[in-house]
Amino acid sequence: MERVALSDLMAEYAMALDEDRLEDWVELFEEECDYRVVTRENVEQGLPNVLMWCDNKNMLRDRVESYRLVNEYNPHYDRHVIGPLRIVAQQDSAATFEASYSLFQTDLEGNTRIFSVGRYRVEALLRDGAARLKSVQVVADTGTIPTLLATPI
Amino acid sequence: MERVALSDLMAEYAMALDEDRLEDWVELFEEECDYRVVTRENVEQGLPNVLMWCDNKNMLRDRVESYRLVNEYNPHYDRHVIGPLRIVAQQDSAATFEASYSLFQTDLEGNTRIFSVGRYRVEALLRDGAARLKSVQVVADTGTIPTLLATPI
Amino acid sequence: MERVALSDLMAEYAMALDEDRLEDWVELFEEECDYRVVTRENVEQGLPNVLMWCDNKNMLRDRVESYRLVNEYNPHYDRHVIGPLRIVAQQDSAATFEASYSLFQTDLEGNTRIFSVGRYRVEALLRDGAARLKSVQVVADTGTIPTLLATPI
Repeated sequence: MERVALSDLMAEYAMALDEDRLEDWVELFEEECDYRVVTRENVEQGLPNVLMWCDNKNMLRDRVESYRLVNEYNPHYDRHVIGPLRIVAQQDSAATFEASYSLFQTDLEGNTRIFSVGRYRVEALLRDGAARLKSVQVVADTGTIPTLLATPI
Repeated sequence: MERVALSDLMAEYAMALDEDRLEDWVELFEEECDYRVVTRENVEQGLPNVLMWCDNKNMLRDRVESYRLVNEYNPHYDRHVIGPLRIVAQQDSAATFEASYSLFQTDLEGNTRIFSVGRYRVEALLRDGAARLKSVQVVADTGTIPTLLATPI
Repeated sequence: MERVALSDLMAEYAMALDEDRLEDWVELFEEECDYRVVTRENVEQGLPNVLMWCDNKNMLRDRVESYRLVNEYNPHYDRHVIGPLRIVAQQDSAATFEASYSLFQTDLEGNTRIFSVGRYRVEALLRDGAARLKSVQVVADTGTIPTLLATPI
């Protein structure tokens, strides 16, 4: 897979979340996919806890739908700033890579704070000429994430 | 336009501002250009307010000159960290793209804080082999930007 | 040198530090190398102070070894998010470039804060097909960096 396709994929991933286009974000995934958010502390201690876990695309759809039902309007703005990709493995039709992220939230008064920083580990596939997400593991350095009603990271 | 030319353009855009080379920043624009800063809240509510607006290059020159007259020395440091580009449209000699930004300010005591996060929407042209800015719209998530004497975002 | 090799180099630079793989980070440098951290204030005032300075690879090795002896475990997490590269000079086997960085730290309670923002100025060489660091100058906007036991930036 070409590097630029992976960079585009992550740019769209971030913009879809930041613009509250959660349904578009889901469409970046394969039907058979895995999305999970874990804390770095748990990973390094070998603990199995996950903050969010969807192991197929229908679970992602359900999660976004539930979020829409609970939140009539989006009570904050998200903003992802993602760093350069670190390619772990690269083939013609598949790639594994990592990227660091910073995620800021802005409340209704317009105040911005750091919400979470961490790292993505992504497996991507080429499907019909477009890069798609096979798995996304978010390893969050920040441990203080309220997750019940949170948008994806 | 080649992708790398757009990335270079934004890298220089950010460095010029961060190094207080505001005159170099102006030179990245076409004579007929548009630079404006709006808040995301206003955009989403369809309100016409703008925080900063220059609709040609001479207005940008005037603004930088005024800033120089008022501020004998730069009372803070800016630092932009820009995320990957999301290409919206791309032709041989023109491109439209978006990118998220985080902008930090450091005061004279050396303390750093988040100043603004948001998104650029840029129209770029190829002129004499170099990428130039036709329009830049800054959509700031952060609503608490003091703008009277501010440097551009 | 190809652009993508430089971007990969900085992605690995940041990931090695953030994952506490300090020995891997050292291996990105040439034997004859220069790594230094200075504050922007000192640079702009022409002062010679440096916060950290290693002028060959053995000094980097020593520094990492000392750090390991003092810190039995890593008391915080680092997270670098690096912006797009600004190429200053580029040849077949060498390149000079700059990049802005934001560096976040997360403490043992999981709280994240801005630790430092600033700019890298990097000279890179092509050696045996891989990009290596000849010199890295970190110019930190943030002035309040405790350096005695700090990890590299």
